[in-house]
Amino acid sequence: MENTKSYKVFRFESDVTWTKEKECTVCAADKPEIQLSSPPEFKGRAGVWTPEDMFVASVNVCTLMTFLAYAKHKGLGLAGYESSVEGVLEYSNGKYRFTEITIHPHITVKSQDEIELARKILHDAHGNCLISNSIVAQVKVFPDFRVVAE
Amino acid sequence: MENTKSYKVFRFESDVTWTKEKECTVCAADKPEIQLSSPPEFKGRAGVWTPEDMFVASVNVCTLMTFLAYAKHKGLGLAGYESSVEGVLEYSNGKYRFTEITIHPHITVKSQDEIELARKILHDAHGNCLISNSIVAQVKVFPDFRVVAE
Repeated sequence: MENTKSYKVFRFESDVTWTKEKECTVCAADKPEIQLSSPPEFKGRAGVWTPEDMFVASVNVCTLMTFLAYAKHKGLGLAGYESSVEGVLEYSNGKYRFTEITIHPHITVKSQDEIELARKILHDAHGNCLISNSIVAQVKVFPDFRVVAE
Repeated sequence: MENTKSYKVFRFESDVTWTKEKECTVCAADKPEIQLSSPPEFKGRAGVWTPEDMFVASVNVCTLMTFLAYAKHKGLGLAGYESSVEGVLEYSNGKYRFTEITIHPHITVKSQDEIELARKILHDAHGNCLISNSIVAQVKVFPDFRVVAE
């Protein structure tokens, strides 16, 4: 049977301008400019975001955003969500690439009996994170769940 | 014959904290915090960077950074580099994902006889961009080259 569901197409645009040495500025419509550099490991300037940082962070943030959408839909009583991420860049199959991205979400819910729902929502969010679906690296998720202190 | 060349492994870390609704803050070591939101298409706030923006921009910026590294190595007289990017997010093989990222680098060199070298460097930078190597989307590059005005 033919799938007649219609799917939207979304487009995201931005611009980069080289400023000096290994540094640049990115801008997008009415959004704040961001200064970027190559990482110090590649002779860039320290203390500045790098394209590698943005790439790795985008996976972590997209997982959060997907979680938030599902949590709202399911009526989860969410009290907090913090998550660290680490991306591993290494030589693999003839080229340098990100091979693994590991996320550690720390999720706080409002009551003990919501922990299982939060776990289920995170599982679904991970599976449907559109950026995780767009990369070759394996994305691993190691969450912990707690109940907000009274 | 065994490949005895040694390759380094690089790690990139950051953190995200949910702030309210569909918004969050990302931070990494001593780098400036960045406010992020889901895009307005997904019920987020306008005028704020999104994870989708970061993902798409990272491909554009990484191509630039790779170009800069090769240009320095080859002694290219680079006078300017600006590049716009568009990422297409659509339903493909059962999931939403980025299927195509199109980059338009506008590259200015210091003399006419450097245009071919710049073209060659961009070709190599595109092929070895470590973020392009890490994603499933097809990355298309449509450059133009010019000579800086006297």
